[in-house]
Amino acid sequence: MSPQTEKKIKSSFAAQAMMATLGARLTHISKGKVEISAPILPGSLQQHGFAHAALTFAIGDSAAGYAALSIMSDDHEVLTSEMKIHLLAPARGDLLVARGRVIKPGRRLVIVQADVHARTGTDEVHVALLTGTMVPVPAM
Amino acid sequence: MSPQTEKKIKSSFAAQAMMATLGARLTHISKGKVEISAPILPGSLQQHGFAHAALTFAIGDSAAGYAALSIMSDDHEVLTSEMKIHLLAPARGDLLVARGRVIKPGRRLVIVQADVHARTGTDEVHVALLTGTMVPVPAM
Amino acid sequence: MSPQTEKKIKSSFAAQAMMATLGARLTHISKGKVEISAPILPGSLQQHGFAHAALTFAIGDSAAGYAALSIMSDDHEVLTSEMKIHLLAPARGDLLVARGRVIKPGRRLVIVQADVHARTGTDEVHVALLTGTMVPVPAM
Amino acid sequence: MSPQTEKKIKSSFAAQAMMATLGARLTHISKGKVEISAPILPGSLQQHGFAHAALTFAIGDSAAGYAALSIMSDDHEVLTSEMKIHLLAPARGDLLVARGRVIKPGRRLVIVQADVHARTGTDEVHVALLTGTMVPVPAM
Repeated sequence: MSPQTEKKIKSSFAAQAMMATLGARLTHISKGKVEISAPILPGSLQQHGFAHAALTFAIGDSAAGYAALSIMSDDHEVLTSEMKIHLLAPARGDLLVARGRVIKPGRRLVIVQADVHARTGTDEVHVALLTGTMVPVPAM
Repeated sequence: MSPQTEKKIKSSFAAQAMMATLGARLTHISKGKVEISAPILPGSLQQHGFAHAALTFAIGDSAAGYAALSIMSDDHEVLTSEMKIHLLAPARGDLLVARGRVIKPGRRLVIVQADVHARTGTDEVHVALLTGTMVPVPAM
Repeated sequence: MSPQTEKKIKSSFAAQAMMATLGARLTHISKGKVEISAPILPGSLQQHGFAHAALTFAIGDSAAGYAALSIMSDDHEVLTSEMKIHLLAPARGDLLVARGRVIKPGRRLVIVQADVHARTGTDEVHVALLTGTMVPVPAM
Repeated sequence: MSPQTEKKIKSSFAAQAMMATLGARLTHISKGKVEISAPILPGSLQQHGFAHAALTFAIGDSAAGYAALSIMSDDHEVLTSEMKIHLLAPARGDLLVARGRVIKPGRRLVIVQADVHARTGTDEVHVALLTGTMVPVPAM
């Protein structure tokens, strides 16, 4: 991946105010694979004290989207067209880690997937699987 | 819908810290239909200045979940098992309004849908469609 | 809808050998709405003697696809990119009826939905809900 | 996997008339993984001469369902509750091969995935990815 692509991803991530609200950070970028991590902040909980599905969705969708962006030419951005999330287990622990990857690249559509794990110490529990469609669009 | 069910939904909503973080409010409850509204706060934006998909997901998923809860016996809660969101248009405006409804009730699974509209003055634009599966579980 | 569009849909349907295998017929075409019906043939059953999910999927997906095609310019075709099906009840009866419609038209993507009902006499039971993404492509 | 479980899967498969209509065969069974293969019969084509999405769906959904069944106690069956299919490439070749696997087992729900490849000689092209929810039910 070119330094320019890496810079584009970092700039885009930094421009997402929601990522700051949720305390999310870009923790890995490579060609076709992006990782985003987030603490489970008090303001990100659901009614049982676990991480809210919206946090899991937020970082899973973004990790998948940036994985798609990492394989595109630098004059393009991506938009999520649709995303399905399976919630597999309660999201509790120190940190959520979302790892996005490209299943099928394409000029018109990029099919992506992301796994989200909840980490407690060195243990990881698989809490969500996302599968979706990203649409490349000319950069604004 | 019984006053007890309405109270259960309001208590559950109030216990979701994420809803407060996003500024979301319960704006309608009836049997099988629930509406949740949220302003587009500066901290809820994505990189182009529109509402983040995670905000749209958060209120759409919750509206659908509470629609399911509104038809259940009061000793049960619901968990989202899976949810698919289609993002139909940029989410910009004064307010997002999510309306959840039950497609198919069931003892083991409840199939739900939600539409999210972005409101600007009196205009509404359809920005998302969610379809998913809720699982009734005994209340904790 | 122009006679040419109607003709294009009928020709495309007639060219799908799978539709003949399943005994499916086009039973309604209008702008943005298409209905396909199929008997529950002995060769279309699953292990409990109900219609197989693949039959339900086949006519739901096609009805949704042709609904998308009905609103496109005549030099385009559509391909299904992704489709989610919820199976709501056992598919038993005289006939399955799939009704497709357009949720959101677009130049690059068309978001569609279809409902499938099982008809017994004049009764209809809602057996499936499909939601998906169609991609317009230049006609071959 | 016990011989009894293997027998249960083979019996269930044999009872699906649709599988015979499509020429599908069970080509591998192990604990949590099931493979189903099907030729692309003249009666299984869509309008461009490729395998119809309903064939791809049929064997992908069944492979995923039997993968779930392979890990259940022998007094249970499974039903598909919902399934999302991404169609990744035209399905052309000698044979379609669907490989189902379990993502997350559970007493109430089993989350599954399947990949479908089109084989031409020894080449395989990834033509579909399915992700869905299976529901265990007491055997009839």
